[in-house]
Amino acid sequence: MITAEQLATARQRALEYFRRAGIVLTPEEQASIEVADFGLGDLERTGLELVTYVNTERCCAKELVLFPRQTCPEHWHPPVDGDPGKEETFRCRWGEVYLYVPGEPAPHPKATPPAGREAYYTVWHEIVLRPGDQYTLAPNTPHWFQAGDEGAVVSEFSTRSRDEADIFRDPEIQRITQVVP
Amino acid sequence: MITAEQLATARQRALEYFRRAGIVLTPEEQASIEVADFGLGDLERTGLELVTYVNTERCCAKELVLFPRQTCPEHWHPPVDGDPGKEETFRCRWGEVYLYVPGEPAPHPKATPPAGREAYYTVWHEIVLRPGDQYTLAPNTPHWFQAGDEGAVVSEFSTRSRDEADIFRDPEIQRITQVVP
Repeated sequence: MITAEQLATARQRALEYFRRAGIVLTPEEQASIEVADFGLGDLERTGLELVTYVNTERCCAKELVLFPRQTCPEHWHPPVDGDPGKEETFRCRWGEVYLYVPGEPAPHPKATPPAGREAYYTVWHEIVLRPGDQYTLAPNTPHWFQAGDEGAVVSEFSTRSRDEADIFRDPEIQRITQVVP
Repeated sequence: MITAEQLATARQRALEYFRRAGIVLTPEEQASIEVADFGLGDLERTGLELVTYVNTERCCAKELVLFPRQTCPEHWHPPVDGDPGKEETFRCRWGEVYLYVPGEPAPHPKATPPAGREAYYTVWHEIVLRPGDQYTLAPNTPHWFQAGDEGAVVSEFSTRSRDEADIFRDPEIQRITQVVP
């Protein structure tokens, strides 16, 4: 969980990254930036800030901010109700992001999982994304990512997003963030 | 049709708009910007410059440039092979764009169709998109759009794109641009 003050601070901080990336948001979008702590209450290390532009039955587009070294923890998008699961493309717009998927493990990975939760990071094939770089993930592919030392802004283009259906490796994770006064 | 020189010039000019919008493209993307004259040979007035980031069976993302007052002519995305047709969201990133769809006609529309081709512009409900504004079109909806006096950069988030299946109101239009030496 995060406090209302942490939420407000994280939103302001995310706005600064959007500004650096040259991404214009409406006042309504600015005021409703989603701040996800994945239930671990350690936003600086495990977390994500995002704006969902559109999410219909068929397709979805989001803009993601990662603070410096912030990690989106390992998860995958399973088939749901006859849908094969979410397919997504990450395109780096600003900063640097390290994406991990199944495959040959990186001998010296650029990212380090959040301390104490290493057991829940199991895929280590590394893809480095700098501005203009992108990578497309098939449904049901375990993945996690971490920003570099400057943070990152990443566009996500995908099929329908069903966050509540995502499966996380770490059993303590809750996708829906609780905000307390 | 356009000449190879016109193609090169339009690509360079589009790059300048991407730069203004803060959008970073890879060298490969920069070198392969698609320039569409829709077969009319009048690129300044009827045309579009675009980069396709991803286009899978399920979803697609593109970045569009319109030069000042350049028009993407009226067309729609019909059902194809059991697919209900392309659904798309336009999000303005830079400049200003006037989008027209079926509905109550604008009494004083901001856009004027290219001279001589007015008959092929039949929908006049106006949506003005400035940076941060967006609009989602259902499949099979006739639409056209024109940039304002400064030009525009627009992100498109959609289901699979099948340009060859698009239907244009103007019978002289050919979606695939021919480039001559």
